[in-house]
Amino acid sequence: MRRLSIGLIGGGFMGRAHALAFRAAAAVFSLPRAPYFEMVADATDELARATAANLGFARATGDWRSLAADSAVDLVDITTPNLLHKPMALAAIAAGKHVYCEKPLAPRAGDARAMADAAEAAGVKTFVGFNYLKNPMAALARDIVRSGEIGEVVNFRGIHAEDYMADPATPFSWRLDPASGPGALGDLGSHLIAMARFLVGDIVSVCGQLETVVTERPVRAGHPETRAIDQDDQARAIVRFANGAGGVIEASWVAAGRQMQLAYEITGSRGALAFTQERMNELKLYTTGQAPGRDGFKTITAGPDHPPYGDFCPAPGHQLGFNDMKTIEARDVIEALAGTRDAWPDFREAWQVQRVIDAVMTSAAEQQWIEITDG
Amino acid sequence: MRRLSIGLIGGGFMGRAHALAFRAAAAVFSLPRAPYFEMVADATDELARATAANLGFARATGDWRSLAADSAVDLVDITTPNLLHKPMALAAIAAGKHVYCEKPLAPRAGDARAMADAAEAAGVKTFVGFNYLKNPMAALARDIVRSGEIGEVVNFRGIHAEDYMADPATPFSWRLDPASGPGALGDLGSHLIAMARFLVGDIVSVCGQLETVVTERPVRAGHPETRAIDQDDQARAIVRFANGAGGVIEASWVAAGRQMQLAYEITGSRGALAFTQERMNELKLYTTGQAPGRDGFKTITAGPDHPPYGDFCPAPGHQLGFNDMKTIEARDVIEALAGTRDAWPDFREAWQVQRVIDAVMTSAAEQQWIEITDG
Amino acid sequence: MRRLSIGLIGGGFMGRAHALAFRAAAAVFSLPRAPYFEMVADATDELARATAANLGFARATGDWRSLAADSAVDLVDITTPNLLHKPMALAAIAAGKHVYCEKPLAPRAGDARAMADAAEAAGVKTFVGFNYLKNPMAALARDIVRSGEIGEVVNFRGIHAEDYMADPATPFSWRLDPASGPGALGDLGSHLIAMARFLVGDIVSVCGQLETVVTERPVRAGHPETRAIDQDDQARAIVRFANGAGGVIEASWVAAGRQMQLAYEITGSRGALAFTQERMNELKLYTTGQAPGRDGFKTITAGPDHPPYGDFCPAPGHQLGFNDMKTIEARDVIEALAGTRDAWPDFREAWQVQRVIDAVMTSAAEQQWIEITDG
Amino acid sequence: MRRLSIGLIGGGFMGRAHALAFRAAAAVFSLPRAPYFEMVADATDELARATAANLGFARATGDWRSLAADSAVDLVDITTPNLLHKPMALAAIAAGKHVYCEKPLAPRAGDARAMADAAEAAGVKTFVGFNYLKNPMAALARDIVRSGEIGEVVNFRGIHAEDYMADPATPFSWRLDPASGPGALGDLGSHLIAMARFLVGDIVSVCGQLETVVTERPVRAGHPETRAIDQDDQARAIVRFANGAGGVIEASWVAAGRQMQLAYEITGSRGALAFTQERMNELKLYTTGQAPGRDGFKTITAGPDHPPYGDFCPAPGHQLGFNDMKTIEARDVIEALAGTRDAWPDFREAWQVQRVIDAVMTSAAEQQWIEITDG
Repeated sequence: MRRLSIGLIGGGFMGRAHALAFRAAAAVFSLPRAPYFEMVADATDELARATAANLGFARATGDWRSLAADSAVDLVDITTPNLLHKPMALAAIAAGKHVYCEKPLAPRAGDARAMADAAEAAGVKTFVGFNYLKNPMAALARDIVRSGEIGEVVNFRGIHAEDYMADPATPFSWRLDPASGPGALGDLGSHLIAMARFLVGDIVSVCGQLETVVTERPVRAGHPETRAIDQDDQARAIVRFANGAGGVIEASWVAAGRQMQLAYEITGSRGALAFTQERMNELKLYTTGQAPGRDGFKTITAGPDHPPYGDFCPAPGHQLGFNDMKTIEARDVIEALAGTRDAWPDFREAWQVQRVIDAVMTSAAEQQWIEITDG
Repeated sequence: MRRLSIGLIGGGFMGRAHALAFRAAAAVFSLPRAPYFEMVADATDELARATAANLGFARATGDWRSLAADSAVDLVDITTPNLLHKPMALAAIAAGKHVYCEKPLAPRAGDARAMADAAEAAGVKTFVGFNYLKNPMAALARDIVRSGEIGEVVNFRGIHAEDYMADPATPFSWRLDPASGPGALGDLGSHLIAMARFLVGDIVSVCGQLETVVTERPVRAGHPETRAIDQDDQARAIVRFANGAGGVIEASWVAAGRQMQLAYEITGSRGALAFTQERMNELKLYTTGQAPGRDGFKTITAGPDHPPYGDFCPAPGHQLGFNDMKTIEARDVIEALAGTRDAWPDFREAWQVQRVIDAVMTSAAEQQWIEITDG
Repeated sequence: MRRLSIGLIGGGFMGRAHALAFRAAAAVFSLPRAPYFEMVADATDELARATAANLGFARATGDWRSLAADSAVDLVDITTPNLLHKPMALAAIAAGKHVYCEKPLAPRAGDARAMADAAEAAGVKTFVGFNYLKNPMAALARDIVRSGEIGEVVNFRGIHAEDYMADPATPFSWRLDPASGPGALGDLGSHLIAMARFLVGDIVSVCGQLETVVTERPVRAGHPETRAIDQDDQARAIVRFANGAGGVIEASWVAAGRQMQLAYEITGSRGALAFTQERMNELKLYTTGQAPGRDGFKTITAGPDHPPYGDFCPAPGHQLGFNDMKTIEARDVIEALAGTRDAWPDFREAWQVQRVIDAVMTSAAEQQWIEITDG
Repeated sequence: MRRLSIGLIGGGFMGRAHALAFRAAAAVFSLPRAPYFEMVADATDELARATAANLGFARATGDWRSLAADSAVDLVDITTPNLLHKPMALAAIAAGKHVYCEKPLAPRAGDARAMADAAEAAGVKTFVGFNYLKNPMAALARDIVRSGEIGEVVNFRGIHAEDYMADPATPFSWRLDPASGPGALGDLGSHLIAMARFLVGDIVSVCGQLETVVTERPVRAGHPETRAIDQDDQARAIVRFANGAGGVIEASWVAAGRQMQLAYEITGSRGALAFTQERMNELKLYTTGQAPGRDGFKTITAGPDHPPYGDFCPAPGHQLGFNDMKTIEARDVIEALAGTRDAWPDFREAWQVQRVIDAVMTSAAEQQWIEITDG
C-alpha cells in the first residue's frame, strides 16, 4: 500500500491530537493509504526533535518553511495558532502540498478566501478540522433533515458554550489577541456555524452582538499585572438561512458549568431534532403523526447503523468518545487524498463559515443586520 | 345531585390530603355525587373540633366509634396509623358503611383478609389508597402491557426508595413499632407491590431479605435516650409472577438522596417500559422493529390522551402533581359508590398485596423461598 | 372571616382554571379572606347560567358591564380573549374594583399603560396571570440570583416553545388576529419576558425577528376555505438587560414536539442555573469552587424548603403540577387584597413586559435595534 | 526502551479490540515498555496470516500451543471463547509467560482457581479484561466510597442489561453452550460482580434465580432447524457483602432496548452514588448536609481531575468512549509488567468473581441461599 507522508506543524495539544488520530485511523479503518509520520516542525530544532521523538515522526525541524517545501511530504498538517495558518498554508500550497489545517481557518474571511483560492488554483486538496461534524450523530441528523423526516426546517437553535475562559485569573493568550480574529465567536462559534451550515444550509443574513465579560486578565499565569481585554467572551446572533428558516446561534467560553455544550435543536414542519455534544452518542428525534397517547421524542443512541461507528465497535450503545471524532476526520483526509471520498470540509467551506463570523462581527460593531452576499 | 356524606377519621397529614382530594375532585370532575364533609373524628373532642374547622367538616367527635356508627355517614374514611385500620374498618363495616382506608391496609395479611371478608359479607364497598396507581402514566403502562405492545413480560424491576428515615436522629414512631407491620416493606413496598400486581399480575413466590440500617433511634425527637429498632429499613426480594415473568422488588426509606423513587422497568419480549415517579409525567417506551438507525426509547409525556389528565388541563405536557393523583383516587371512590365504576383497589386487592409482604417477611426470617398459595 | 367576592368574566378554559385555583387555594392555604363565587359573566345569559352552575357561582349575567359595576363584587377576574381585557378592566377600575386579568394584558403597550395608569389613579389593586412565576422553583432561582450565589449575571437564554399551532389544519382564531397583539410573541413570549424580568431585571434594548411559518389556515375547523395569516409563529430577539447582561429570548407555538418548553439558562460570573418547565420541579444549579474532581451541576428538586411547596405536601420530591401554580397565584391575589402581601405582578409590571414585546415587534418591522426608553 | 512482545490468541472482535488498545495505549500514554506485535494465533495458519496482516503482527500460527511456548513472546493475550481460556492460560503459564485473558476467566470457579494457583506458583503476572473497571468514573466512585464521602455503604443495586440475545432468531452459539459456563450471568454478570467487588467489597452470600427466556434458537443463522436452549438469559440475586451491606444484582442479555446498561446505585449512610455506563462520562453524587433548599444529586462529568482522562484530552467534559477503557486496560497491563503498577484485576480476582457466579448458579438450582466460604 502506498503511504501518505505527513508533515506536521505544531507539537502542542492539537498536534498531538492529530498524531493520535492518524495512528488510530490506521488501526481502526482499512485505509487506502498508510499514514507515515515523515516530519514535524516546532518552534525550535530542539523542541521539534523532542516532539518527533514523542509523537513518532522520522524527521524534525525548527523551520516550518522547510517542512512545507520538503519533497518527501505529501500533506502539510497545520495545528499552530490561528494567526499562523495563512502563511503556512500558502507556503505549503505554493509547494504543491495538500493541506490539513485546524479551525478557525484564519483571522478574517478575506484570509480564508485567499487560502481557498490559492489551493484551488494549485489543484491541491484542503481540509479543516471541524471535528464535531464527524460525529456519526451529526451525519444522522443531516440524513434526517435531508430526507424530509421532520419536514421543512423552520428553526435552528444552536449553542456552543464552554467555560474554559470563565475564570478571570486565566491569563492573556493568543486567543485573546484581536489579530487572531474574534474570541469565543471564532473559537467555538466556528464549530457551531459549520454545524448549522452542515445541517440546514447557507446563512444569508445575521444580526449579532459581542460582549467581553472579563475585561482584564493577567498578562501571564499568576502575574499580578493585567492587561485590558476586548475580545468577545460571548457572542449571539439571529440568523436567516437561504432556505427561509430562521435561527439563533450563541457562542461563549465563559459559560460556567458548561464544558462541551455544542447543542442544537432543529424544528421542522413535521418534527424536530435535539442534540448536545455533552451526550454525544444520543440524538433526540420527534416526528408528528405518532399513535395517539404514544407521542414523544425518541432517544437514538449511536450504533453500527450510524457509520462509521461499527468500525470502532460492533455493539450498539457502547459509545464513541471525543478522540474518535478526530480519528474519523483523519480517515476522511486519507480517503480523500486517495480519491475515494470528497475532500470536505475544505478551505472553501471554512471561508463560508468565516464569512458568517465576519458578518456577525460587523453586525455587532455597526449594530445592524448584515447581509451575506454571494462570494 | 345526591350527596355523599363523608366521615373522616384522622386529622393528620393524610386526613388533610383526603379532604383536599375530595374538594379538588368536586372542582375538577363532573361527579355523580357531591362529597359532603359530614363529620371528622380525632383523638379528642377538642382536636376534632379544630380539625373540623380547619378542613370544613360539619361535625366533630373525639370518639371514632360514634362516627363509624353515625347514621348520616355514607363513607368512613380512615387515615389513622396502620395499627388502627382494622378495628375502625370492622366497626364501620358492621354499621354498613363503605370504607376508604389508607395503605398499608393492616399489619399482617390475616388482618387484611378478615377486613376484606367482612366487607364482602356486609356488601359494602371498600377502597385502599394506593394513589400511585391513579397516575395516568400507570394506566398507560398497563394499557401498553395488556395490549401486547411490548410482547410477553419477562422481567419486572421495581424500586420504591425514599430517604425520610435516613437520618439516625429521626426518632421512634409508630411506623417503627413491629405491631404496625413491617417498616419500609410495609410503608413503601406496599405501593410497589400494588404497582407490580397492577402492571404484571399475581406474584406467586418470593425470596426476600430485610435489614435494619439504623439500629437505634431517639425515643422522641431531640431526646438523648434511644431505643433499639429492628424494623426493616431496607427490603429486597426476588419474585416470580404467575405469568412466568421474574423480577426484583426493593423498598427503602433510608435511600439517601431519593425522595420519590417509585421506579420500574418492565421488559417484554418485544419492548420495554421505564418509569420513575420522580418524573411522574413521563413514561419511556421501547418497542422492537423500529426503522434501522432510528431505534430508541421514546419519552411519552402525559396529556389529554391519557385520561383523566384532560380534566385537569386541556394542554399536553403541562404536568400533573402529587396531589392530583389523590384527586383522581377520590373521584374513583365517588364514582364507584355511585355505581359508575368498579371499586378498586379494594380490601381484597390490598390483602393480596399484604400476602406478598407477609411472604417476604417469612422468607427473610426463614432464609428461604416462600410460595404464595391460593387464598 | 371576611369573604372576598369574585366576579368572573369568561367561562372558557381559563375561567374554569381560575375557579379551580380559588377553590384549591381555599383548601390548601390558610387564607385571610374566603373567596366567594359571587357572579359570572359569559357571552349570553344562558351561557352564563350554565357556567355559574358548572363552576359554582351564585349569580350569572350575559352582560359583563353589569358584573363590572356590581356592588357585591370585590374583585373582577378577567379571562376573556386579549382584545377585551382593556375595556373590561377599565370599566371595573372605574367602578372601583380590584382587577385580576389574564396575560397578555393587552394588545399593545399603550393599552397596558393606560390600564396601569387608570388602576393606580383609582387606587385599586391589579394582578396579571403570569402563573409560571409562581412556581417555587422560580422563586428559588430568583433567590439564588439575588443572593449572588452565581455571581453577576452575564447571560440569559430563554425559550418558550410549544407546538399547539404547528398543525396547518389548526384553524384561524382570535389569537391569529393582529388586533389581539402579536402571536407567539404575545402568547408565550409574554411569559418568558416576565420570567426574564423576574430573574434578571429590566430589558433596555432588543433586536428581534418575527416569522409566520403557517401562512394560511382554515377559516374554521375542518372548513376547506383558508385565510392568509401573518401573525408571528416564531419570534426571537437578542436583548440587553439594564445590569449589562446580554441574552436571547425565543417564542414559538409551532415547535414540533415541545409542549411546555419554558426554559432558561442563566450564566453568572460564578455559576449558572438551568430550568425547563417540562420538569417543573427541578432546578439545576452550578457554582464554581467545588472540590476538585467533584465539580458538577446539581439537580435541586422542589420540597418544603421552597415555599409554598409545603402547603401542598409535607414530603420533598413529590412534585407540584401545573394547576398548583395557578393555586399559588390565587393565594397571592387574596393575600394581596387582604394587605398581607404586595400585589404582584400587577398591571404596571405587565406594561413593562408589553413594552419589550412592542419593542421586538418594532425591531422586527424596522430591522434594527430598538432602545426601550424610560416610561 | 525495552519492548513487550505480545502473542495474541484469537483474531475475532476481541482480538482486534486488544490490538487496537495496545496501539492506542502506545500513542496516548508514555509507556515504560513498547508493545510489539510479535505473533498471532488463529484457527488455521491461513486465518492467522490474514489476521497478522490485518492487525500488524510479525508472525502467525494456526497452532496456539506453539505461540504459548514461543520464546519471543513475553505476554500471551487470550481472546478466544471462554471454554478455551483454561488450557491456553495453563500452557502459557507452564511456559513462564505472563497472561492477559478476556472475561469470564473460565466456565466455573474451580477452573479459575486452578488458573490462578498455577500462575502464582509460576510467578507470572495475570490480567483479566474487566474493562469497565478502567473507566475513570469507576475509580472516582471507588474513591468516593473509600473516603467515606457517602458514609458506610448500606445498599448496592447493580444491573448489567443488554439486548443482543433478545431476538429469538439469534442462533445458537458457544455462549449458549453450558460447557462455557452460565449465559448472561457469566457474560454480563461477571462485569457487574467485578464492579460490585471493586466498589463495595467481598460478597459472602447470595440467593439467585436464573431464567431462560428464549427456549429454542436456530442451530445457526437463518437455519430452520432449532435446538433447545437452557442457558440463563436473565439472572438475579440478592447478595450480602462482607461489610454488612446488602444488595441486588441482575444480568440480562434479553433486555429489550438496553444496549449498555451497566448501572449501579450505591447508598451510604451519608450519601449515594448513581451511574450507568449508558452515560459513561457521568457520575451522580449525593451527600447529606447540603444547604437547606440547595439539596440535590450533582452530576460529575469526567475530566482531567479523573486520571487518566487527561492523557486522552486536556479539556474536561469532552468524553471518553468505549474503546478508551480498553486502552487504559492495555496501559495497566504494560505498566504492571514493567513493575510500575500492580497487576490487577488478576486471575485471583477473577476467581473471586467466578465464585460468586458459581454460588448464584448453585443457589438457583437448589432454590436456597448459598454462603461463599473462605477460599
